[in-house]
Amino acid sequence: MKNLALFLISMFALANASSQKEDSIFIRKISDHMLTNGQAYEDLRYLTKKIGGRLAGSKGMVLAENWSESVMKSLNPDRVVRQQCMVPHWVRGGNDLATAYFVSGKKSQSKKLDVVALGNSLGSMKPLKADVIEVKNYDDLEAKKDLVKGKIVFYNVHFNEKFVGTFNSYRDAVQYRGSGASRAAKYGASAVIVRSMSHSTDNNPHTGSLRYADSLPKIPAVAIGLMDADWLSTQVANGNTAVSVHTHGKFLPDTIGNNIIAELKGSEFPDEIITVGGHLDSWDNCEGAHDDGAGCVQTIEILRTFKALGYQPKRTIRFVMFANEENGLKGGNKYADEAKAKNEKHVFALESDAGGFTPRGFDITASPAQYDKIKSWKPILSDYGINDFTAGGGGADIGPLNRTFNTPMAGLRPDSQRYFDLHHARNDTFEAVNKRELLLGAISMAALVYLVDKYGL
Amino acid sequence: MKNLALFLISMFALANASSQKEDSIFIRKISDHMLTNGQAYEDLRYLTKKIGGRLAGSKGMVLAENWSESVMKSLNPDRVVRQQCMVPHWVRGGNDLATAYFVSGKKSQSKKLDVVALGNSLGSMKPLKADVIEVKNYDDLEAKKDLVKGKIVFYNVHFNEKFVGTFNSYRDAVQYRGSGASRAAKYGASAVIVRSMSHSTDNNPHTGSLRYADSLPKIPAVAIGLMDADWLSTQVANGNTAVSVHTHGKFLPDTIGNNIIAELKGSEFPDEIITVGGHLDSWDNCEGAHDDGAGCVQTIEILRTFKALGYQPKRTIRFVMFANEENGLKGGNKYADEAKAKNEKHVFALESDAGGFTPRGFDITASPAQYDKIKSWKPILSDYGINDFTAGGGGADIGPLNRTFNTPMAGLRPDSQRYFDLHHARNDTFEAVNKRELLLGAISMAALVYLVDKYGL
Repeated sequence: MKNLALFLISMFALANASSQKEDSIFIRKISDHMLTNGQAYEDLRYLTKKIGGRLAGSKGMVLAENWSESVMKSLNPDRVVRQQCMVPHWVRGGNDLATAYFVSGKKSQSKKLDVVALGNSLGSMKPLKADVIEVKNYDDLEAKKDLVKGKIVFYNVHFNEKFVGTFNSYRDAVQYRGSGASRAAKYGASAVIVRSMSHSTDNNPHTGSLRYADSLPKIPAVAIGLMDADWLSTQVANGNTAVSVHTHGKFLPDTIGNNIIAELKGSEFPDEIITVGGHLDSWDNCEGAHDDGAGCVQTIEILRTFKALGYQPKRTIRFVMFANEENGLKGGNKYADEAKAKNEKHVFALESDAGGFTPRGFDITASPAQYDKIKSWKPILSDYGINDFTAGGGGADIGPLNRTFNTPMAGLRPDSQRYFDLHHARNDTFEAVNKRELLLGAISMAALVYLVDKYGL
Repeated sequence: MKNLALFLISMFALANASSQKEDSIFIRKISDHMLTNGQAYEDLRYLTKKIGGRLAGSKGMVLAENWSESVMKSLNPDRVVRQQCMVPHWVRGGNDLATAYFVSGKKSQSKKLDVVALGNSLGSMKPLKADVIEVKNYDDLEAKKDLVKGKIVFYNVHFNEKFVGTFNSYRDAVQYRGSGASRAAKYGASAVIVRSMSHSTDNNPHTGSLRYADSLPKIPAVAIGLMDADWLSTQVANGNTAVSVHTHGKFLPDTIGNNIIAELKGSEFPDEIITVGGHLDSWDNCEGAHDDGAGCVQTIEILRTFKALGYQPKRTIRFVMFANEENGLKGGNKYADEAKAKNEKHVFALESDAGGFTPRGFDITASPAQYDKIKSWKPILSDYGINDFTAGGGGADIGPLNRTFNTPMAGLRPDSQRYFDLHHARNDTFEAVNKRELLLGAISMAALVYLVDKYGL
C-alpha cells in the first residue's frame, strides 16, 4: 500500500511537472508570436491617430465600434456580436476657458489658466467671475464653509507623492474631482477649480467624471494643471484673486452605444465563460491611448494570437470592447445584466484598464482558494515580468459581473509611475505608448486566460 | 537547557524581527524623503540641458566634472576628491553623412541616409562610395568573404525581439558594432554600415564604441537607423546599390579626465569601503540622460539623502562619478588600480548604468553566500519594486574592482523595454526620463547600500 501510494504520488508529481512544462512552452509560443508578429501597436496607432477621442455618444465612439467589430471579424472567431445599451451623451460644447485676475505690486493683472471642464459638468455658458477661496481638503472646506458663498472653491489637494504605487494617490485624491462640486455647492459656491489628479512635471489639466448630487445646484467645475495650481495658490495667499470661468458642458439625450464582443466557443465546457476586455470609450480631450486604447488592442491581440496558434479553448472566451466606462459604466452594467437574464455561467473576468505600460502583476478579487490558485502560476508568469499578485481590484467594466455572480476577476497591473502623468489629459497619446510594453501586457493577459481556461478556478 | 535554548532562540528571533522593522522604517524614511524632496530630476535637467553630451576629453566632460564636484561638495560629505586618469580623446570631427544610390524602374536615384559614425571609428575624411553587400551575421560574412573586397559591408543583424529582457538582445548583437569593421576589413571591405543595436519604432541611428584590430586596416564605420536599414536591405535585394559614406572621426592625443569621488567615513569599520556610482561621460550625439546621467544623479541623491537624514554609516561609503565608460573604461580601471596601490578593502560596489527607468531588481556578481544574503532582503526591497535578483552582471565601471579584489558587485536593473529605443541615440534626452522612476531607482540603491553597510556581506 505504501509503495502504491508513493507510486501514485510520484506519478502525480511527474504529470504535474509535465503539465507545467507544457504550459511554459505554450506560453512561450504566445510570447514569441506576439513579440515578433504582434499587431497591437499598429491597431493602437489606427484607433488613436485615425479615430482619436471617443467619448460615449460621440462620432469617434461610433467609428471605434465599427473598426473594432471589423478587426475582430477579420480574425474569424466563432462569432462577433454587438450588445446594445443606452449611454449618456455629454458634450464639452466648446473651449474651456479660465482667466485669473490678481494684483501684483499695485497693478491689476490677468493670466490665462490652462483648464479643462470636468466630464459630466454643466457649463457656465457665459463667463462667471468670482473670488477664489482655496481649500486643502474637505475638513478645510467645512472649516471655511461660511466664507464660500458666491466664491469659486479651489480644491488644491496634492497627490500624495509618498506612495510607491500611484493608484493609492489617485484613490485618496479623486473624491475631490468626483464630489467636490456638490460639496462646495452645498455652501453656495458658484464654481469649483480642482487641482488635477496627477503628480506630473508639466501643466496639462486632467479631466474625468464628476457626479452631481441631484438636490444641489449643478455648478461649473474645471481641473487645472499643476503649475497653474501652484501659481494660483500663491496668488490667493498673496491677496484677493478672482477667476473667470467659461465652460459649455451639457447633456444631450441618452443615445445608443454598443459593447463589441467576439467569442471563441469552448470545446469541453462551452457554458463556462471567461471574459477578457478593455473599454473602447475615452475622454474627448485626448487620444485615449493608455486609457484605454491599450486594453482594447491587447484584448484583440489575444484573440489574434489564439487564432494564429490554433488554440482551441476548453471554455468559452469572450473578448469584449466595453462601450462606456468613463462617464456611466453602462457597457459593463449591460454586459452583467444580459448575462444574468440569460443565466450564463461566468467563471472568470480579466480587464486591462491601467495603461499600456510594462506589466508587473495582477489585481485579484476572488475567494482565497481562487487567489491562491492564480498565485500558484507565478513561476510561469514571472518570466514575463509578473511578480505582484495583489488582493482586491480588477476592473470597472467587469465589476458588475463580479457583483452579480461573484465571478472572480483580475486586472492587469502595469507599472504605474507614468500613468497619472497623462491620465485623462491631452498627452495620453500614441507616442506615450511603447510597443514592447504594450505587447508584454497582452502576453501576460493571454497567459492568465490560457491557465484559467485549462485548469479552471 | 532546553528552555534556555528556546529562550535564546526566541530572543534572537525577536531581535531579528526588531531589526527588520527598524530597517523597514529607515528605508521608508529614505523613500519618503526622496519622493517628496528629491533633487535628482533637477540635477539631471542641469546635466543634460545646461551641459549636454560629455564624451571623455570634451568640454562637456570638463563642465560635468566641475558641476558634480561642486554639487557633491555642497552636500558636505567628509571629503570630495578628484582622481585623475588619462582618457582617450576621440572626436567625431564633423557631420556624418551617407547617401544611397540605387536604380528604381530604369531611373538612377539617390536617398540620404540617417547615420552616425561609430565611436572610436576613423573617418573616411572624403566621400567614399562603394557597392553594398549585406550580411546577416558573421557566418554569412565568411560565406561571402570572396565578394567583399572594395565593398561596403552592411551588417543587417536584427535585434532578437523574442527576449523579454532587452539586454539579452543587445548581448547577441553588439559584437557586430564592436568588431564588425575589422572582421570586414580582413576581407578587404572599404567601410561598414551596422544596423543600430535597437528594436525602436523610429529611425534614429545609435552609436557606441568599436574596437579596431591593430593588424587590419581601420575602415570607416557607421550605424544606420532601423527604417533606413530595412529600406537599404530592400534596395540591395533589388539590385546593385552603392552608398557614399563621409565621416570625420579621429583621435587627438590622450587627455586628462577625473573620477569625482565624495566620501562618508565609516564610524565602525572605516577601512571597509562601499562604492556606489555611475559614469559621468556620455556619447556626444545625445544628452546622455539615461546613459548615464541617471546613474550619476541617483548616486548624488543617495549622498544628499543620507546627509539630510543624518545617517552615519558604519562603513565608508564612496559616491563615484566615473570618468570614462563609453570608450575606454579608464575611469573604472583607475579606481581599481589606485585601490590596489593603496591596499584598500572594498567590500561592495553598486552601479546604476542601465537607465533611469522604474527599478525591477539587481544584477549581482558575488559568492553564493553573499548573493543569498542580498536576496534575503527581498521582503524589504520588494516594497520599492525590486523583485529580480539575477546572478551575474553588475556594472562596467565597477568590474575592475570585482576583478581585482573579488569585491561583490551589483547593478541596478531597471525595466529594460525602453532602454534600447534611445541608447546612444539622439533621443536619449531629459524628456525621456520620468521623475518618479528615476527617484525609485535611487531609493532602491540607497536601501541596498544601507543594508550592506549595516550588515556587511
